[in-house]
Amino acid sequence: MLSVEIVTIGTELLLGDLVDTNASAIARSLSDYGIDVYAIHSVGDNLARLAAMLRGALDRAQGVMTSGGLGPTVDDLTKDAVSNVIGKPLVLHEPSLAAIERRLQAFGIREIGENNRRQALLPEGAVVLENPNGTAPGFVAIRGDGKFIACMPGVPREMHPMLSERLLPWLAKRFELGAAIFRRTLHLTGTAESELDRAIEDLFRMQENPKIAVLAHDGRVDVRMTAKARSRSEADALFAPLEAELRRRIGTAVFGVDGETLEAAIVARARDLRLWLATAESVTGGGIADAIVRVPGASECFRGGIVAYDNAVKRDVLGVDRRALEQDGAVSERVALEMARGTRERLDADVALATTGIAGPSGGSDSKPVGLVWFGLSHGDELATRSATFPGTREDVRRRAVSFGLSWLWRRLHRAER
Amino acid sequence: MLSVEIVTIGTELLLGDLVDTNASAIARSLSDYGIDVYAIHSVGDNLARLAAMLRGALDRAQGVMTSGGLGPTVDDLTKDAVSNVIGKPLVLHEPSLAAIERRLQAFGIREIGENNRRQALLPEGAVVLENPNGTAPGFVAIRGDGKFIACMPGVPREMHPMLSERLLPWLAKRFELGAAIFRRTLHLTGTAESELDRAIEDLFRMQENPKIAVLAHDGRVDVRMTAKARSRSEADALFAPLEAELRRRIGTAVFGVDGETLEAAIVARARDLRLWLATAESVTGGGIADAIVRVPGASECFRGGIVAYDNAVKRDVLGVDRRALEQDGAVSERVALEMARGTRERLDADVALATTGIAGPSGGSDSKPVGLVWFGLSHGDELATRSATFPGTREDVRRRAVSFGLSWLWRRLHRAER
Repeated sequence: MLSVEIVTIGTELLLGDLVDTNASAIARSLSDYGIDVYAIHSVGDNLARLAAMLRGALDRAQGVMTSGGLGPTVDDLTKDAVSNVIGKPLVLHEPSLAAIERRLQAFGIREIGENNRRQALLPEGAVVLENPNGTAPGFVAIRGDGKFIACMPGVPREMHPMLSERLLPWLAKRFELGAAIFRRTLHLTGTAESELDRAIEDLFRMQENPKIAVLAHDGRVDVRMTAKARSRSEADALFAPLEAELRRRIGTAVFGVDGETLEAAIVARARDLRLWLATAESVTGGGIADAIVRVPGASECFRGGIVAYDNAVKRDVLGVDRRALEQDGAVSERVALEMARGTRERLDADVALATTGIAGPSGGSDSKPVGLVWFGLSHGDELATRSATFPGTREDVRRRAVSFGLSWLWRRLHRAER
Repeated sequence: MLSVEIVTIGTELLLGDLVDTNASAIARSLSDYGIDVYAIHSVGDNLARLAAMLRGALDRAQGVMTSGGLGPTVDDLTKDAVSNVIGKPLVLHEPSLAAIERRLQAFGIREIGENNRRQALLPEGAVVLENPNGTAPGFVAIRGDGKFIACMPGVPREMHPMLSERLLPWLAKRFELGAAIFRRTLHLTGTAESELDRAIEDLFRMQENPKIAVLAHDGRVDVRMTAKARSRSEADALFAPLEAELRRRIGTAVFGVDGETLEAAIVARARDLRLWLATAESVTGGGIADAIVRVPGASECFRGGIVAYDNAVKRDVLGVDRRALEQDGAVSERVALEMARGTRERLDADVALATTGIAGPSGGSDSKPVGLVWFGLSHGDELATRSATFPGTREDVRRRAVSFGLSWLWRRLHRAER
């Protein structure tokens, strides 16, 4: 099994000015390929310490992967350290120089400076990793004993594509890595994690490749399949029968796959059904409308909403009965229902969702604690309500109420006849 | 100058399942105290490798700070490694055992298991760092030569208070660290970074302690003062005259300090002025209303809003003239104005803000490109408009439009007479 250490380079990491997301991204990709990561290190822009770190890492592991320190300034010392550790001089790599010149010219810079020219110096004999997103090329320098140091830029949007499109394929070929880990995730809502566990317990125990994991979030549960395979298409072939069985058992709760959102599922379903949606929000303050508008194409199924924060708006704009507000209070089943009906009629929609609740920190009572939220739904002649009491801060309550509302709306549309 | 290395412990870090936020938080705190961080390392739950890492770090630096690996399971090996490296046996620390028992009892657990009992084993003679937020105590173990290893739990909400309230004060005392870095940040809006630079350029160059830095964000610019001082009150005394001078020059743009938000400044100002606010949102889809409702106490100045996404809602609910929609289009100065006036009247508010724009990815044209947003403001008899074209994706455009809208609303209220 190939073993590597990861070294991220930059004094800003040691000052805590920056959270190191490159290290975990590289580690994740390596573990997907079954490569054993022995350790992760961050060092500053200090030649002696960086060289010592690289030397130590090559003693322990077969390779080192670095990010950072390839920029044009005198602080960027990664190549000097690598040259030193590998025992190869830095030489000018003409194709990289030409690429840098082309890139700078595209930005209107005619004369390439000494600093940018330095970016085309690479350890003699290194494998070059082109950088379509920046000036600094990456590279893999190989020592006499076959151990290697692979260097990538520190800017994440340059590092990520270089890692997945250049470096990993090179490693896979060189070390005949074969199988990697692929993932496919089903997103579910309206089902408890425990319920789900029971429904798929046997699959859970039975599986070797692919494996299943269940992960709970606010208003959502993920069933993640991971497979070891030599390609995405081989992995997809492994996922297909398992996914079919999962969908047979729990499919009614699946709203999307691989990062699809509840709001996107709502918009897709409403467009399919040719239904117009509307919202009436008090406690969620526009958060549900905002989530729906986030989806491109929302304009084809979303009329809009009323943020009825003040009771006067509930009464005057949505037509909520003054007596309902006085007798039952603004946070009540009756008001949630009347808000939903009011906004559906007022905005000429087919389906309307309403929220009214107490986000806190003040405003709670024994009978109506902070966190209590009533939801109302009006769909044609049908009316329905739900209530829940959410724990946490004002922001937690509001975020959970948005998730619950979206989940309920999706389930409602999901069951609706075409 | 005291030098340390940081070691974060846990196999999940090497698998990339977790971004290491502890390392940067510890590094930031240490650099605030002028402590030199030589390197940061992450290692897995492997006794031999962990011990080798700690030994190497103590060769290079005067101390090591760790997080993770103090839990009750057999995977938690930090104390075994430290005991080995420092050369002190693990012994039962009775007060920690009692604290663990009390904590478990509070959760209804009567019998303390062998696993939790192990959490009270500490290297002989270690300085104990109590953990009010979990079962695992932290500690500082000191080697014969005076070098130390300080260990904290990996759970951030246990680690953070232990670091700032126990470990840093202990280090400051033991190593007579004296001065640390303190910060105070003024948040500004409605001013360009370049303009600001000119206004305070001389202060910028003049300052040694405190120093000034200018940092630009969406719809906001921060002026951050940092001072070296022995206490918060000493730092505040250093900040006061500089802040007075800054406010004399750029004070009209300052909406808050140290993390205060634009929406909080809007709510505070509107409550002060006893003004009722309302919104009419198309492109921002409820995002501005949602930001205002985020602020506790918003109910005393925010009536609510209309999310007028569909033109029918602009017309029927807000009373926007059908001809304005037909002649000028939904994204136009006239419609923004009519939306603002409509929502102000409809919701019986004093000040209303409206947005209408093209978030993309589709819907743009030569004269009205993707990113174009019109804003309207209605305040009593006054009407005003602004437009801007924001770059980026659908989400970028919408987020920038929310920031711009909040900024403009605050500036308007800020200038309003009491």
